[in-house]
Amino acid sequence: MLTAGEIAKICGGKLRGEAACKLDGLAPANSAGASQVAYVSDLSDKALFENSRAGCLIAPLSAENEKTSCPNVVYCENPLWAFTLVMRRVYDDTKPAIAPGVHPSAVIHPSAKIGGGASVGAFCVVEKGADIGEGSVIYPHCFIGENSRVGAGCLLYPNVVIRENCELGARVIIHSSSVIGADGFRYLRRGEKHEKIPQLGRVVIEDDVEIGALSAVDRAMLSETRVGAGTKIDNLVQIAHNVKIGRNCIVVSQAGVAGSCELGDGAVLGGQAGIADHVKIGSGAVVAAQTGVMANIPDGQVVFGSPSRPRGEAFRIEAVLSKLPEMYKFFRELRKKFPPAEK
Amino acid sequence: MLTAGEIAKICGGKLRGEAACKLDGLAPANSAGASQVAYVSDLSDKALFENSRAGCLIAPLSAENEKTSCPNVVYCENPLWAFTLVMRRVYDDTKPAIAPGVHPSAVIHPSAKIGGGASVGAFCVVEKGADIGEGSVIYPHCFIGENSRVGAGCLLYPNVVIRENCELGARVIIHSSSVIGADGFRYLRRGEKHEKIPQLGRVVIEDDVEIGALSAVDRAMLSETRVGAGTKIDNLVQIAHNVKIGRNCIVVSQAGVAGSCELGDGAVLGGQAGIADHVKIGSGAVVAAQTGVMANIPDGQVVFGSPSRPRGEAFRIEAVLSKLPEMYKFFRELRKKFPPAEK
Amino acid sequence: MLTAGEIAKICGGKLRGEAACKLDGLAPANSAGASQVAYVSDLSDKALFENSRAGCLIAPLSAENEKTSCPNVVYCENPLWAFTLVMRRVYDDTKPAIAPGVHPSAVIHPSAKIGGGASVGAFCVVEKGADIGEGSVIYPHCFIGENSRVGAGCLLYPNVVIRENCELGARVIIHSSSVIGADGFRYLRRGEKHEKIPQLGRVVIEDDVEIGALSAVDRAMLSETRVGAGTKIDNLVQIAHNVKIGRNCIVVSQAGVAGSCELGDGAVLGGQAGIADHVKIGSGAVVAAQTGVMANIPDGQVVFGSPSRPRGEAFRIEAVLSKLPEMYKFFRELRKKFPPAEK
Repeated sequence: MLTAGEIAKICGGKLRGEAACKLDGLAPANSAGASQVAYVSDLSDKALFENSRAGCLIAPLSAENEKTSCPNVVYCENPLWAFTLVMRRVYDDTKPAIAPGVHPSAVIHPSAKIGGGASVGAFCVVEKGADIGEGSVIYPHCFIGENSRVGAGCLLYPNVVIRENCELGARVIIHSSSVIGADGFRYLRRGEKHEKIPQLGRVVIEDDVEIGALSAVDRAMLSETRVGAGTKIDNLVQIAHNVKIGRNCIVVSQAGVAGSCELGDGAVLGGQAGIADHVKIGSGAVVAAQTGVMANIPDGQVVFGSPSRPRGEAFRIEAVLSKLPEMYKFFRELRKKFPPAEK
Repeated sequence: MLTAGEIAKICGGKLRGEAACKLDGLAPANSAGASQVAYVSDLSDKALFENSRAGCLIAPLSAENEKTSCPNVVYCENPLWAFTLVMRRVYDDTKPAIAPGVHPSAVIHPSAKIGGGASVGAFCVVEKGADIGEGSVIYPHCFIGENSRVGAGCLLYPNVVIRENCELGARVIIHSSSVIGADGFRYLRRGEKHEKIPQLGRVVIEDDVEIGALSAVDRAMLSETRVGAGTKIDNLVQIAHNVKIGRNCIVVSQAGVAGSCELGDGAVLGGQAGIADHVKIGSGAVVAAQTGVMANIPDGQVVFGSPSRPRGEAFRIEAVLSKLPEMYKFFRELRKKFPPAEK
Repeated sequence: MLTAGEIAKICGGKLRGEAACKLDGLAPANSAGASQVAYVSDLSDKALFENSRAGCLIAPLSAENEKTSCPNVVYCENPLWAFTLVMRRVYDDTKPAIAPGVHPSAVIHPSAKIGGGASVGAFCVVEKGADIGEGSVIYPHCFIGENSRVGAGCLLYPNVVIRENCELGARVIIHSSSVIGADGFRYLRRGEKHEKIPQLGRVVIEDDVEIGALSAVDRAMLSETRVGAGTKIDNLVQIAHNVKIGRNCIVVSQAGVAGSCELGDGAVLGGQAGIADHVKIGSGAVVAAQTGVMANIPDGQVVFGSPSRPRGEAFRIEAVLSKLPEMYKFFRELRKKFPPAEK
C-alpha cells in the first residue's frame, strides 16, 4: 500500500534502500515480515535492529552506522513519531468509510443544525436546537440533547450520550457509551432523606480532547464542568460535577475525580487513582495508579499511595514495611528488657 | 424569570429588599451578578456575604443583623435547602420539554402497558408484558425487558437497559447507560472450566432511588437483588447479585459491592470503596473512599483503609507510618547493641 | 414445571421420594417451600438439611443416612452442579423467547452475513462485511462494525458495541453496554501536546468467553488484544490494548489491566485489582481484590496489597500494622535512653 520512498517522505526521514519497494502492512519490529513496516525507538535492543525481518524499518539517526539485515531503513530523529505519521496515513486509507449526510432513520429536530459534510448515523437522536459542526462524524445510536453543540471535525462512536446544553469544541473524540452531562451527585440530607439538588449547569469539552469508552463527565450544579483543550481521558473514568481539568492532562482508566476538583495543565492521573472533592492538583503533577489524594498537590509533585504521599517518602516507607514483622518481634523482646515505668 | 418576592415565597423566607425585582438566573455567590440569585450557607466567609454582587442573596437567619451590599436578601433557616427549592423551580421551568406519548419509532410489544401521561422516546424497545407507570419519561434508546415494571413518575435517561422481570418503584431516576438486571457473576469450576450458573432471579429498585450513569445492578441467582427506597447511587458503581441495600444509603462513584452483601439503612460507601462478598455493613456505617471491607462492620462505624480499620485506629497508624524509615534505622542500631540470644 | 423424577434424571442423582411429585420453582434451601426445589452443598449446616421445607432437596451423597423433613431428596455427588443443571433447564424453559430473523428496523449492510437461525433485534446496526454466526442472538441496539465477526451461538445483550475488524468466537456472551474494540489509550508527547497514535489492531475474543456489562476491551495498536477461551470477565472491567488474557481466567468487577499485560491460563483478578502495563501474571496466579501489581507474578502465586506482596508476607505486615502506634511510642522512649551518637 506504500513504497519505502513514500514512507521516508511521510516520516521526513532519510531512506537507505530501494524507494520503489512496496510494503503492505505495519507490525512490531520483532514480528514484522518482508512486506511490513516496523520501527525501533532506540538501539537498547541492538539485536532487534540487526536481525529484524521487516521489509522497512524506521530507526533513529544514531543507527546510521549500525549493521542491519533490513533491506530498507528510514532514519529519523524520533522513530515513534515517524511511525505514528505512517500509521495515521494507513488509518486514513483503511478506516471505515462514513458517508456524509443524515441516515434516514435518524430523528433530527427541525430546529437542529447539521454542519456541511457531517455524518449522522442510523438511529441517532438530535434534539431541539442542537448543533453538529462541519465534518463531524456521529456514529449510530448517539443522543445529542437539547441545545448541545458538537464542534467541527468531532468523532462520536456508537452510543455516546450528550445531555442538554453541553458543548464540545473542535476535533473532540468520544468513544462508545460515554455519557457527557449526566446530573452531578449531590443531595441535601433532611432527616433520613436525601433531597436531590438539581444540576442546572453544563459540561464544556474543549478542542482536541479525547474521551475513552464508558466514561462519565457530569454536568455542574450551576456553572460548568470543564475539560481543557488537548486533555486525554481513558475508559471508565469518572469526572464529577464542577470539576475543572486543565489543558493537556492525562487521566488513565478507572480514575475518579470528585466534585469541584481542579487539575492544572499537564497533570497526570494514573489508573484507578481517586481525588477527593475540592482538591487542587498542580500543573504537571503526577498521581500514581491507585493513589488516593485528599489534599492539594503542588505543581510538578509526584504522589503515591492511599492516602497519597510524595513519591520519595512513600517509597521509603514501602521499602521498610517488609521489615515490620521482624521489628515487632524485636520490639517485644526489648519491651521485656526495658519495661514501661510504673505509672 | 422570578422576582425576589417569588423567591422569598418559594423559600418560605423573609425578604429584605424589593419584591418586584426581577432575577433571571442562578449562580455561585462569589460570581453572581446583579440579575442572579445566589446563596450563602453560613457566615464563615463574612466578606462573601458583605460584598456579594448577587441581585438576590439567600442567607441564614443569623445574617439578619449583618451588613451586605446585596439589594435583596432572603433570610431562611436552611439557605441551601431554600436555594434547592428555587433550583427545582428553575429546573421545572427550563428542563427539556418531553411530550407524553410513544414516539412512532419505538417498538412496543402489543402486550406491554404504557401508563397515562408517560413518554416513551425514539427507538425505545418495550418487550412483552412490560409495564411503564403513569407519567414516567423514558428517553430514547432505552430497553425495557420482558415483564419488567417501571413505576409511576420514573425518569430513564438515554440508553438505560432494564433486563427481564425487574421492577422499579415510583419516582426512580436512572442515568444514561446504566444496566439493571445483567446476570450475576457466578460460575462453578469443573476441571479447568468455569461452568455458568444461570441467574434466574431479578432486581427490585424501590421508590425514590436514583442511579447514576454507567452503573450496574446485577440480577440475583434465585431471589432478588434489592436497592432500598431513597438510596442514591452514583456513576460507574457495581452492585453484584443478591445484594440487599437498605433505605437512604449513599454509594459514591466507582464503589463496588460484591455478591450477597447487605447494607443497613443510611450506610455510606465512599468513592472506589469495595465490599467483599457476603459482608454486612451496619446501618449508618460509613466506608471511606478507596476502603476495602472484608468483614462485617457494626452500625454507625466509620472505617478506612484497605483492608479497612475503624477510622481512629487507621488514622493513628497512618500518622506514624511516616516515622517508619527512621524507626527502622534505629532498630538496626539497637539490633547491634542488643543482638539476639544464641539459639 | 418439573417432577422430582425429572429432576433426579437431570441431575443424574438418586431420588428418595415420589417421582411424580410436581415442583414449580427454585429457591434457596432456607426459604424454599413445598413446591420448590433447593440444594444443600454439604452438611455443615445440618439443621438446614434436617428442617428444610423444600418440596425437593438436592443433597450430597454423604446425606443419605441423615434424617430430613423433606419428602423428596435427590442425592448427588456435587449438589451445586446438579442444581446448576436444573437451573439451566429452567432457564431454557423460561428465558425471553427470541424469534430468529432480522427485525425490520435493523440496518444491515447488504454485504453483511447473518447466519441461519440467528436473531438480530430492533435498531441493530450491522456494518459492511460483518458476519453474525448461526444461531447467535443479537439483542436490540447493538452495533457490529465493519468486517467484524460474531461466532455461532453467541448472545449479545442490548447496547453492545463491537467496533470494526474484531472477532468473537463461538458461544461468547457479552452483557449490555460493553464495548469491544475502542481505541487503545496511547499518545506521543510532543512539547505540551499529546499526539494520538492510531490504533490499527483488533480484538479477538475466543470461544466460551463471557463479558459482563459496561466493560471495555480495547483494540491493539498493531496486532491484537486477545481474551482466551473460557475466560469470564465481570462488569466495569478495563482490558487495555495489546493485552493477552489466557484461557479460563476470572476477572472480577472493576479490575483493570493496563496495556500489553499477559495473564496466564486460569489466573484470577479480584475486584478493583489493577495491573500496571507490560506485567505478566503467571498461570493460576491470584491477585486479591484492590491489589495493585507493578511487577511480574510467578505461576500460582497469590498476591495482596497495593503495591502487591505475596499473601503470606502481606498478611504478616497487616497483622503488625495495628501495633505500630505503640511501637512508635516505645521507640521515642528508647530514643531518649539511647540517643544517637554525636556526628
